[in-house]
Amino acid sequence: MISPLAPESFPDLPAIAGVRIGTLAAGLRYLGRPDVFVAAVGTGSTVGAVFTTTKCPSAPVDWCKHLVAQDVEPRAVVCNAGNANAFTGRAGVRTIEETVRAVSALLGVASTSVFVASTGVIGEPVDDAHLVAAVAAVQMEPSGHDAWAAAADAIRTTDTFAKVSTRSVVDGVNIVGIAKGSGMIAPNMATMLGFIFTDAVVSTAELQAATAAAASKSFNRITVDSDTSTSDSIIVVATGASGVTPSSEEFSGALHAVMLDLAHQIVRDGEGATKFIEVQVTGAASERAAEAIARSIADSPLVKTALAAEDANWGRIVMAVGKSGEAAERDELRIQIGPELVAANGVVHPDYSEDRATDHLRGANVVLAVDVGVGTGAATVWTCDLTHGYIDINAGYRS
Amino acid sequence: MISPLAPESFPDLPAIAGVRIGTLAAGLRYLGRPDVFVAAVGTGSTVGAVFTTTKCPSAPVDWCKHLVAQDVEPRAVVCNAGNANAFTGRAGVRTIEETVRAVSALLGVASTSVFVASTGVIGEPVDDAHLVAAVAAVQMEPSGHDAWAAAADAIRTTDTFAKVSTRSVVDGVNIVGIAKGSGMIAPNMATMLGFIFTDAVVSTAELQAATAAAASKSFNRITVDSDTSTSDSIIVVATGASGVTPSSEEFSGALHAVMLDLAHQIVRDGEGATKFIEVQVTGAASERAAEAIARSIADSPLVKTALAAEDANWGRIVMAVGKSGEAAERDELRIQIGPELVAANGVVHPDYSEDRATDHLRGANVVLAVDVGVGTGAATVWTCDLTHGYIDINAGYRS
Repeated sequence: MISPLAPESFPDLPAIAGVRIGTLAAGLRYLGRPDVFVAAVGTGSTVGAVFTTTKCPSAPVDWCKHLVAQDVEPRAVVCNAGNANAFTGRAGVRTIEETVRAVSALLGVASTSVFVASTGVIGEPVDDAHLVAAVAAVQMEPSGHDAWAAAADAIRTTDTFAKVSTRSVVDGVNIVGIAKGSGMIAPNMATMLGFIFTDAVVSTAELQAATAAAASKSFNRITVDSDTSTSDSIIVVATGASGVTPSSEEFSGALHAVMLDLAHQIVRDGEGATKFIEVQVTGAASERAAEAIARSIADSPLVKTALAAEDANWGRIVMAVGKSGEAAERDELRIQIGPELVAANGVVHPDYSEDRATDHLRGANVVLAVDVGVGTGAATVWTCDLTHGYIDINAGYRS
Repeated sequence: MISPLAPESFPDLPAIAGVRIGTLAAGLRYLGRPDVFVAAVGTGSTVGAVFTTTKCPSAPVDWCKHLVAQDVEPRAVVCNAGNANAFTGRAGVRTIEETVRAVSALLGVASTSVFVASTGVIGEPVDDAHLVAAVAAVQMEPSGHDAWAAAADAIRTTDTFAKVSTRSVVDGVNIVGIAKGSGMIAPNMATMLGFIFTDAVVSTAELQAATAAAASKSFNRITVDSDTSTSDSIIVVATGASGVTPSSEEFSGALHAVMLDLAHQIVRDGEGATKFIEVQVTGAASERAAEAIARSIADSPLVKTALAAEDANWGRIVMAVGKSGEAAERDELRIQIGPELVAANGVVHPDYSEDRATDHLRGANVVLAVDVGVGTGAATVWTCDLTHGYIDINAGYRS
């Protein structure tokens, strides 16, 4: 069943010069859909990447961090869905070695130019022979609408729809991104898997800075269930094949738009989600404090169950502000549910109408705005509600 | 419906010399059961107390903190269930003033010796006239089994059973405690409401130290849903009426036992709970780090939904260790589910049997033990599973 919050249309995805793509339905875990994705990029490409800050990263995350630290020229990205190759010890390292060797043979590029990402079950060793045979059988083709759509399909796990986004940087220069993620979503410096390609000319240093900045205001501002994955990775590759060097603002703006679109799609596909919720916090001591308060509200099971029930139970918002530990002036607190002013100066507003607040909550898109009356720090976090669907999915799925 | 994890028997509760108790079914919100509780204690009593660290405390918490800071001699405690008097601004302060004045008139004690606690809906002004009339009508009687049982009943909200505990300190000297709590449970320096009385002679300084120490290893080590209340308060009163001064070790040990028993009962009454889960973390950099890791596991919705489903999905435990942000040696990690060794040295153990692990999870009492291979820090946290029941309760209840 597709999430009721899924985007209504699927955009047209342009080719990105310098990028070839292949996918394969290898049946590693999921049947009847592609589950292996390979991207090849031309020489002269640059890469920017951010990864999970978990203390127990997966083998692919270790490998990619190593490549980034070595400042390698990227030539390929390979991803499998179904097994995260996390907490697999030496066997996990061997899986990486065999995988990059297979991609190297397939594409004729150095093993140490191949970025790897895996998503799925944690703790089970990967069936190396199966994965290597699958990679060897991949057929590459130039990037373009159908190839991107197949790639976005290939990286899904519990995702109910494929997540893609595109923006034009300047005339003739584009960005295309794909992502996956639905549960275990509380990215910290990175997110679930995201692969983003552009044919702009962007230096490695600029690309890394733009990637980190855009991730911090997009993927790092979403939460489904407060659980941070072992495998979160965003890899952005600029092939430079357009020959066009956009301004830093042009590129950063388009990259942020693609990341935010993908991040919102992950929330819209949050496990069991029926509401897309924007939590705006203002008046905090700093942007960091505002983000912490917004996250405290967005992660609260009590807030999320109330919203699922379309119950304007705003006392739970007060609770979540208070538990964040960040400075807040209780007697200056201002709370809005959609357009309805609920509370100001630390008490319920005389004109507050619970009926009007409930009307807003009946929609699929909910906005909660809280001013904590301390300073000028502001941040927005996006989340979804907590429903029986989340429990059904996670009592049944082996992640 | 009473929680399936409720204790099988209700203990005999002794009288505590120097304590009188009264309860009343005032119908403030709950009908057909007492909802107002008053305790009166003799002159010469001492008090120790800990309160929520929320940045948005309720009016009663503000009031009690003020009394503790003034080092007042305690003469009474009053509690109502149904309305938390939180986020009620100046009206909330007036409610406190009128309540302590009513208790003062009832008992003939100073208003500033009356501790107040309230639990229930956040954000709604209290009906002062109704509450004052209720307090005025309370009939006091000496403490004893039936009076304690009625008091434990009077402070319930979504609790499915009354929570009481008792221990003997030394011959002829006892402690009796009552508590409430079921959801919005992630105490931070304190917990939901707990009222504990002893007839031991204990100085104020010693009582405050013993209260804080015992709370930090009991109420502060439980979590139902990671949500911290605006109203958490534990108040411990020593009447000294036995004339017996126990040793510091005797008193601290008995006080900790009562608090741990009450804290475990709160978890056993966790909203929707079907499993009582003990998370033991060892090998951490410090006790604080061990507690943070244990809490990360205990608060993870993915771990809790897996346990509800009796699914030995231990990859989610790895995930939760990693997301805690505390030092952990991934390649030294050791995980046990009940008696079954799941993983050692960062990989699944060759003799691991998922069937045996699942057998353990089928029971109502689950133990997860994790050694993170860094140091000697250890801590245990108790929690419950996350089920459809939690969502049913919280989509329906206005907390």
